[in-house]
Amino acid sequence: MNSPDSKNGTTRDGPPLGVAMIGYAFMGKAHSNAWRNVAAFFDVPAFEQKVLVGRDAGQVAAAASKYGWTESATDWRSVLERDDIHIVDICAPGWMHAEIAIAALEAGKHVLVEKPLANTLAEAEAMADAARSARERGVQSMIGFNYRRVPALALAREFIAEGRLGTVRHVRAAYLQDWLVDADSPMTWRLNKETAGSGALGDIASHAIDQVMFLLGGSVTEVSGRLHTFVSSRPGAEGPEEVTVDDAAWATLTLDTGTIASVEVSRMATGQKNSLKLEIYGDKGSLLFDLETINELGFLDATVPIREQGFRRILVNEPEHPYMDAWWPQGHVIGWEHTFTHEIRDFLTAIHGGAAPSPSFEEGLAVQRVLAAIEESANAKSSIIQLTTAAVPATEGA
Amino acid sequence: MNSPDSKNGTTRDGPPLGVAMIGYAFMGKAHSNAWRNVAAFFDVPAFEQKVLVGRDAGQVAAAASKYGWTESATDWRSVLERDDIHIVDICAPGWMHAEIAIAALEAGKHVLVEKPLANTLAEAEAMADAARSARERGVQSMIGFNYRRVPALALAREFIAEGRLGTVRHVRAAYLQDWLVDADSPMTWRLNKETAGSGALGDIASHAIDQVMFLLGGSVTEVSGRLHTFVSSRPGAEGPEEVTVDDAAWATLTLDTGTIASVEVSRMATGQKNSLKLEIYGDKGSLLFDLETINELGFLDATVPIREQGFRRILVNEPEHPYMDAWWPQGHVIGWEHTFTHEIRDFLTAIHGGAAPSPSFEEGLAVQRVLAAIEESANAKSSIIQLTTAAVPATEGA
Amino acid sequence: MNSPDSKNGTTRDGPPLGVAMIGYAFMGKAHSNAWRNVAAFFDVPAFEQKVLVGRDAGQVAAAASKYGWTESATDWRSVLERDDIHIVDICAPGWMHAEIAIAALEAGKHVLVEKPLANTLAEAEAMADAARSARERGVQSMIGFNYRRVPALALAREFIAEGRLGTVRHVRAAYLQDWLVDADSPMTWRLNKETAGSGALGDIASHAIDQVMFLLGGSVTEVSGRLHTFVSSRPGAEGPEEVTVDDAAWATLTLDTGTIASVEVSRMATGQKNSLKLEIYGDKGSLLFDLETINELGFLDATVPIREQGFRRILVNEPEHPYMDAWWPQGHVIGWEHTFTHEIRDFLTAIHGGAAPSPSFEEGLAVQRVLAAIEESANAKSSIIQLTTAAVPATEGA
Amino acid sequence: MNSPDSKNGTTRDGPPLGVAMIGYAFMGKAHSNAWRNVAAFFDVPAFEQKVLVGRDAGQVAAAASKYGWTESATDWRSVLERDDIHIVDICAPGWMHAEIAIAALEAGKHVLVEKPLANTLAEAEAMADAARSARERGVQSMIGFNYRRVPALALAREFIAEGRLGTVRHVRAAYLQDWLVDADSPMTWRLNKETAGSGALGDIASHAIDQVMFLLGGSVTEVSGRLHTFVSSRPGAEGPEEVTVDDAAWATLTLDTGTIASVEVSRMATGQKNSLKLEIYGDKGSLLFDLETINELGFLDATVPIREQGFRRILVNEPEHPYMDAWWPQGHVIGWEHTFTHEIRDFLTAIHGGAAPSPSFEEGLAVQRVLAAIEESANAKSSIIQLTTAAVPATEGA
Repeated sequence: MNSPDSKNGTTRDGPPLGVAMIGYAFMGKAHSNAWRNVAAFFDVPAFEQKVLVGRDAGQVAAAASKYGWTESATDWRSVLERDDIHIVDICAPGWMHAEIAIAALEAGKHVLVEKPLANTLAEAEAMADAARSARERGVQSMIGFNYRRVPALALAREFIAEGRLGTVRHVRAAYLQDWLVDADSPMTWRLNKETAGSGALGDIASHAIDQVMFLLGGSVTEVSGRLHTFVSSRPGAEGPEEVTVDDAAWATLTLDTGTIASVEVSRMATGQKNSLKLEIYGDKGSLLFDLETINELGFLDATVPIREQGFRRILVNEPEHPYMDAWWPQGHVIGWEHTFTHEIRDFLTAIHGGAAPSPSFEEGLAVQRVLAAIEESANAKSSIIQLTTAAVPATEGA
Repeated sequence: MNSPDSKNGTTRDGPPLGVAMIGYAFMGKAHSNAWRNVAAFFDVPAFEQKVLVGRDAGQVAAAASKYGWTESATDWRSVLERDDIHIVDICAPGWMHAEIAIAALEAGKHVLVEKPLANTLAEAEAMADAARSARERGVQSMIGFNYRRVPALALAREFIAEGRLGTVRHVRAAYLQDWLVDADSPMTWRLNKETAGSGALGDIASHAIDQVMFLLGGSVTEVSGRLHTFVSSRPGAEGPEEVTVDDAAWATLTLDTGTIASVEVSRMATGQKNSLKLEIYGDKGSLLFDLETINELGFLDATVPIREQGFRRILVNEPEHPYMDAWWPQGHVIGWEHTFTHEIRDFLTAIHGGAAPSPSFEEGLAVQRVLAAIEESANAKSSIIQLTTAAVPATEGA
Repeated sequence: MNSPDSKNGTTRDGPPLGVAMIGYAFMGKAHSNAWRNVAAFFDVPAFEQKVLVGRDAGQVAAAASKYGWTESATDWRSVLERDDIHIVDICAPGWMHAEIAIAALEAGKHVLVEKPLANTLAEAEAMADAARSARERGVQSMIGFNYRRVPALALAREFIAEGRLGTVRHVRAAYLQDWLVDADSPMTWRLNKETAGSGALGDIASHAIDQVMFLLGGSVTEVSGRLHTFVSSRPGAEGPEEVTVDDAAWATLTLDTGTIASVEVSRMATGQKNSLKLEIYGDKGSLLFDLETINELGFLDATVPIREQGFRRILVNEPEHPYMDAWWPQGHVIGWEHTFTHEIRDFLTAIHGGAAPSPSFEEGLAVQRVLAAIEESANAKSSIIQLTTAAVPATEGA
Repeated sequence: MNSPDSKNGTTRDGPPLGVAMIGYAFMGKAHSNAWRNVAAFFDVPAFEQKVLVGRDAGQVAAAASKYGWTESATDWRSVLERDDIHIVDICAPGWMHAEIAIAALEAGKHVLVEKPLANTLAEAEAMADAARSARERGVQSMIGFNYRRVPALALAREFIAEGRLGTVRHVRAAYLQDWLVDADSPMTWRLNKETAGSGALGDIASHAIDQVMFLLGGSVTEVSGRLHTFVSSRPGAEGPEEVTVDDAAWATLTLDTGTIASVEVSRMATGQKNSLKLEIYGDKGSLLFDLETINELGFLDATVPIREQGFRRILVNEPEHPYMDAWWPQGHVIGWEHTFTHEIRDFLTAIHGGAAPSPSFEEGLAVQRVLAAIEESANAKSSIIQLTTAAVPATEGA
């Protein structure tokens, strides 16, 4: 146990909060890391990493042992019945989110659920309803858009809220990866609409869209979009299988603030490994961000004399920056994983203070609605203009 | 005179080509610079900077003297009648292009015309027809998409043509400027559709679209687009005037090669001064370019072991690079202006060799057609999905 | 306890290794973090975070609780007597290193000691002797030059060892910080030669010099150096006090390989937060590194055609890269702190395998000797040429 | 002729200044380009590119024709006798500088001489004497340290002079090239001390040292240095020949302002093409520059809140920047060659105004003296400390 203080309740009043986590794959590993470390850096209410839940008894026991959980279990329903469990952290696949989250909220457990909220809009709406109702009973919930806890992006939000950018005219948001570049890489459940819900759109455009709303504080009122699958068939266990989700997506969003945001996402952007890029253009300044350089924020202050204007690279690593006074001396950069450490810190703090943490399920639902609208627009194809370009005669070339 | 050799015809046979240029504003200054310097660096046919044409006799005489032209004139029609003029370089405003270019071609002059080809599609079509007909008589013509002559982009095209990128899946093209950020900057003819034809779309998206077709060698078959004017009224001489062109534009293009290109342009991107950004993603490699770092090309070779992959910054400044053996030793970078020097070099070389230079008027017309289709799609607005987001209850925030 | 498996000895044979750590300031926090997390990512022998040792009973107890140690203690000598302690990790101040380390080795404990090895050359030599002697008895020791465990630098070393750089002609090494820029920031023990041993030289040049030897695998044969204190007096508790260590240092080193390395370090480099910069130039390629972008390695391969040469940015974040298969998917970057996680992993692995870990105390001593030689050269000042520049008459200026 | 106005003396009073240039290799090509273009961008006194002087009659005639000179000649002495020549621009090899420059000054011609001032200190001193004496007769002279006319560096000097950096503590100056990396590239006159004077030291360290004095406005009072030749023998016409100049040099300079500057230059820095790098650290701010990105200046303002500090990239391309109102709209970058255009502009302006242009021959001599002191220090080798590192026993490695 990493926060022995919590056992005695010396740092915060009340008995330690018991935590159960469901799922131990990529997100489970990342969330465990956050639970294991948060109390070594932040002053959080006492808690205990009680139980890790998974389907395979042997594997989940090994994962629990490796990741710092006291126990393991295979039946999430019975875990929800335990009195010593106060928090449920859901890292199971998206199609399980709604069932578990609603049950946990009804059982009076605070719930953290990984994004996306759900695979369907209907499920997401049911979850938002359950969250609203639970909140009235003092039971809190949150969706894990962890990039809200990147210190550089939290700083960006502060700058925008302080008016440093003035009126934001437009935003360029992109999330580029390249893990599907090879046309021969095999079919997986992630490329099947039935199991995955959607492709790059739901997986990574959701982050980009959440950032737009998080940073600007507005709602999306209009959407136009396009989806494309570059490799429509991939090798399956018994021959070629059809890829039924998008490899890439493009959209423009209009916000109620008048801002227009372009969103472009791809799993085919060779050489871009995990590049969530944000460019925010206001009439008094601009911001640049790339997740691959997570500790940096680009900022141009257009209110200084033109002679000395330029994009500056702020190394977001000073005690003055969001979350950073807990870490290392200046210039000693932190990694991607601590977006979750900060998320858990904020979640625990909100619960302890009786406040509703953000982003709420309703905020997660708002992202789902934008995703659904992009898909609807893409299917309509009604604005596409066909061109019958006359053949251009050959010329000398360049 | 900058190329005295040409007087004696020692470097190339035949009498020197007489050049007339029409217009002496920004583009006239840039083209003059190219004519004045091309023979000091490249082996081109003999020519003479004969006459500069403009409306104001005094101003055009001063400009001629400053920019290296032997004479000046105010009537372009009479210049077209001169036997000692073989080339006409048109840097006049877009609405004059068609009339002058067609007259010049009919008078048997080789014609170089600045982009965009014309302000209307009808004019552009007439010009392409005239060019085709003139070419049959050995009279050549070219449109000045000067960024085709950026050495880094010429190198990019070579890499793509050589298959270094494999199959190109998608392209991200953007052209970002910020000279309209200030909402109080006054109304100008450039912001009036009658005089300017269009806004950011025609002015800078034209470059981005031409690059997509230049680099990939394909035709655009489908277009979807959106236009927006962020500041719709600006101070005029006698009170507020309506801005009738776009400040920014977004589009996706489908090429006959299957590639999808996104295009985003803005005159409101605070801090981006003249940033034509290109990202080209293929299954074997990728390329990155930014006009503000004109001497550099980013290249990722995805065929080397993953352990050593990364975007490399090629300083396109070696004798092995397009156009560069004419210039300075390695690492001594050149400026934006020499895109025109290279353009004039290629134009003269094609004329001398009896070949049709590229990009032809037909290629310019192809760009116009794409621009028109984007405008048509934007006006249709048929794919826009309205969202009526329910109010999200206030939560703690991040 | 973070690695429950170890309790049962299921992953590795033998009872878990008991670890004691001395010191809980900056380095103690960083080492604790590594001990707390290493088993969640790497397959290491079973161990237990037994006891944290410090002078103040209350504070060390709180730190132990926060950082994951089972117990705390105030007397390091009695801890050395415990049979359940097998490893001693020394994060105490430099002037205590020799006494504790030698005692621990004599008590048969494996020892990890933070850099620098000691404050004086005599102490460092005694420690190296003790380590050599202990090693013969199977008791291991290591000095914590943690930057050897930056994945990008481990990759750099691999490239050099594989001959990818050919013959390395010269190296530019710099370590730039800015925490002493303010001339009014107060006097501390770190600025007093008695307590600190030296200034920027011992603190950060030691890292740069260790890297040179680590990366190239050679020994330093000749040294020339210079030291400077820009702010020689700072506010003390009772008035101005003299700063008796260097603020900055410059040196050139000759290696037995023929390579020449320049080293420049400063605590006055405004805006450079924690920038260990390395540039390594060989006849077949070059490498660039900056600690502020810890996940990246610059590499230029001079064996590919000149036309496509350029420094590439390798995001050292692939399973193919040193240490990285333990972490997150590609592009999900890690932070500075995991240099220690990797260090502990390598230390534990070596102990378990009965091998001598590297860098050894002897390697630490080699660095100390170079530091001492730089100081000796700086004090000699014998190569400094005085210039009596005649006054230059005033001219127009630029 | 590029500035016809000058013929009539309409822009400036007096007859046009007649210019002769001696030498037509790399520097001759670059200077010619500046003479050919300066009047098209800047308002300069009337002048004429009269005569180009070289040894080979045929080649110099061809070069004159190509580069815009009216005549050519082979005897520089007779050119000095011409009444229609008022300015002599010396681009001949360094060993000819003293003789020609002194003769020209005595003949009453204004003289611009390429750097370095001379191959020996004695010659440089004679030249400075001649310049001082000529200046009293109204005859001006200047040495061509063209990088003083890089707009970004002129802006850097302004910032420093305005106090934006506060007290400058230290400077890192490096000039890195790679054209000698290949050990098999042949011997040339540039690698022979008799003909070249020195190697990287005189050729490129001279630029770096001039920049230090130019930017900070101080004099060098102390020097310590080191030289090295990595490849000491190269293929000659009749077998291996000894390289008698340095391939690389390292130095520290102390200025009378208290600033310490490190200087490092190399022709062996694989992948660095023409990289003059400057880092200037003051207590209120810092500056960064790299000649390969000639249009950019890095600036950190340490007086803004730490939360928003960061190095900004100023694109030095606005009308507000030195020299830039003459060129193109913002973001349309210029090339290396225009350092000379600006130099000629400043030279002509000073002559016309009767002022002494800068850098004077005396300033060139000051640089020579620093170079000589570096060589003296390097030869002394008195501060070098030998290390007899005991063999380090093999350990596990990283």
